[in-house]
Amino acid sequence: MEQLLLLAPSEARKRIDALQALMCHEGIDAVLVSDNANLLALCGRVYAGYAWIPAEGEPVWFVRRPVELGGDNVVYIHKPENIPAYLSEASLKTGGTIGLEYDITAYSAVLRLMGLFPDSKTANASGVLRRWRSVKTPVQAQLMRQSGVKHAEVYKRVPGLYRMGMTDHELQVEIEHLSRLQGCLGVFRISGPSMELFMGNVISGKNADNPTPYDFAMGGAGLDPSLPVGADGAEILENTTVMVDLNGNFTGYMTDMTRVFSLGKIPQLAVEAHQCSIDICHAFMKEARPGAAAKDLYAMAEAMVRERSLERYFMGHRQHAGFVGHGIGIEINELPVIAPRSRDILQEGNTIALEPKFVIPEVGAVGVENTYLVTGDGAECLTVCPEEIVPLI
Amino acid sequence: MEQLLLLAPSEARKRIDALQALMCHEGIDAVLVSDNANLLALCGRVYAGYAWIPAEGEPVWFVRRPVELGGDNVVYIHKPENIPAYLSEASLKTGGTIGLEYDITAYSAVLRLMGLFPDSKTANASGVLRRWRSVKTPVQAQLMRQSGVKHAEVYKRVPGLYRMGMTDHELQVEIEHLSRLQGCLGVFRISGPSMELFMGNVISGKNADNPTPYDFAMGGAGLDPSLPVGADGAEILENTTVMVDLNGNFTGYMTDMTRVFSLGKIPQLAVEAHQCSIDICHAFMKEARPGAAAKDLYAMAEAMVRERSLERYFMGHRQHAGFVGHGIGIEINELPVIAPRSRDILQEGNTIALEPKFVIPEVGAVGVENTYLVTGDGAECLTVCPEEIVPLI
Repeated sequence: MEQLLLLAPSEARKRIDALQALMCHEGIDAVLVSDNANLLALCGRVYAGYAWIPAEGEPVWFVRRPVELGGDNVVYIHKPENIPAYLSEASLKTGGTIGLEYDITAYSAVLRLMGLFPDSKTANASGVLRRWRSVKTPVQAQLMRQSGVKHAEVYKRVPGLYRMGMTDHELQVEIEHLSRLQGCLGVFRISGPSMELFMGNVISGKNADNPTPYDFAMGGAGLDPSLPVGADGAEILENTTVMVDLNGNFTGYMTDMTRVFSLGKIPQLAVEAHQCSIDICHAFMKEARPGAAAKDLYAMAEAMVRERSLERYFMGHRQHAGFVGHGIGIEINELPVIAPRSRDILQEGNTIALEPKFVIPEVGAVGVENTYLVTGDGAECLTVCPEEIVPLI
Repeated sequence: MEQLLLLAPSEARKRIDALQALMCHEGIDAVLVSDNANLLALCGRVYAGYAWIPAEGEPVWFVRRPVELGGDNVVYIHKPENIPAYLSEASLKTGGTIGLEYDITAYSAVLRLMGLFPDSKTANASGVLRRWRSVKTPVQAQLMRQSGVKHAEVYKRVPGLYRMGMTDHELQVEIEHLSRLQGCLGVFRISGPSMELFMGNVISGKNADNPTPYDFAMGGAGLDPSLPVGADGAEILENTTVMVDLNGNFTGYMTDMTRVFSLGKIPQLAVEAHQCSIDICHAFMKEARPGAAAKDLYAMAEAMVRERSLERYFMGHRQHAGFVGHGIGIEINELPVIAPRSRDILQEGNTIALEPKFVIPEVGAVGVENTYLVTGDGAECLTVCPEEIVPLI
């Protein structure tokens, strides 16, 4: 029988311990988790059901599907209403404060779960779970490192995929194809319902300045108003840049990486803005230490942009994004957020995608994005790949 | 300036009228919509913001992003708290019952929206919106027809993509590549957070019987426990089937279609089960008329399966799915649901994916899936493509 828990016992223990410490600090006596990303972080797989994590003691894994999973504390249920009966029979405490995923779970579903525990208070555990997920264990960091290596291998082969006269969409499809053959899982996990992406974006020329519904530096009209972002199907023109920002999910833990390619000669403004981005990344790598304030790191980036008078183009031109970096792991929008009013303080084990980008009207987008692991010795870059603008031909 | 509303005025009027009629019937005085799929159905594009639809009168489009959209009743806001002030200044009524998307919107977000209207009751508008979306206008049906044509073109070329020794994943990647080049938008919209798919599934041989976390007939272990569904990277073997069930989203409105391919000789049991599926589809096409009960259509399919003693394999083997068909359009899981206890009654304009499938252990999955439009004259198949099992070589 296949085991539900796919983590080594010591790794599982480490992750549960870390969550329980945060729960105790917040006064949450148990969390009931059903979000796929949180389940994956807890047990190493996605399943349909719930995980019950008490502040002290062992988790219980309530499974609806798939059939035939085994292991300690694996309990099959038909519906969430079966959970309280099991907990009470097993003499597991359900009083106190039960944390639910208020920021992710639909209103109707939360009301249903609240109804299971009429004698308990419920509280929002979304913040605790996000903070927990923002600190990666060495095993999780290694999964991201593996994604980063494959991600970089794909990007290094981009010039070989370009053929004269290609559209942005055609080049994107060739990169997707290579990436999928290299084992990219394709799925691009984004917390919350409002942001939709397929496998990321390839943006060229004036399309970079088309604003999107999302809080992105780079825009793009997309192929269709149902997904108004990214490549718009126009031919890649001489004297424009091509920004490639595609999915790095090879292990369930993804890296985020952007590189820029060019066709013909690129104006000096674009070259300078690109260098500014590289310089910001290198400065970030030194400063992104445990204890650093995310808002200070944003301010540092902004100061470097202002010094070179590039504010007009920074993080977008017609529309500006409100951040320069974001936590990443199972999902693309984890903590910490590198933004002007962020209250996040960096911790060892954070993984952060830094993306100082510029949109130069008529030319395209420039700038690099790397995923960094915060360590006691400064940041480690997980997306090692040449950073300069690379000619497509 | 680009217009927010991308629908012709008569089409926009028709869609709003239909929603308002349902709202009046349910006693909902206004709905505040923010789900991407609902916004797309209302105005023909996805944007970040809200649509305010009163039971009588004109919609107001509250936009956060993208910048620079124009048109009647387009109002830029920074946050939802700006909405009530605008409505009150414009003398638009906010009393009565305001419908919110309780089944989709996160608990925290619903509480925030409730706080905007302290003098109103709020109610769950998810049901009304789902029923509204389940009836397509001729313009929406035409977008699905266009997707169906492209979807079929891709499937017809599958045998040409196969090379000896390929794995299921490699074949899937080649089909994805062709499909994307033909204009497939890639994104696979599923309502609710629990089901995750990339571009659909290619399933072969014994992998078809691996159960997944999802309510699917066909299974598959997937490449990684973070996405435990579909192709598992094993070579496609002689005397197995290959079921192809991939994304048909070419227009924002998608079709769902499954076809089966074979390598070598397939056992008689699999051939008979496949024919049973085709026969069920043809019977459904005659019976799927306005007024037909979804549960009766399920019972008809089940009876045909029982007549041929194929129950063990129907809609899965180790794990069975609880339905045989589902509404489809912008999302893959719309109404009506063709299931034993469904209360849905078919209406003209419903679009339904019928997927009577069988899992034959060690051989693979068989059965077809088509998307049908319910018309006054019976159902129209939108996914016209040969239905028999097609040899890969």
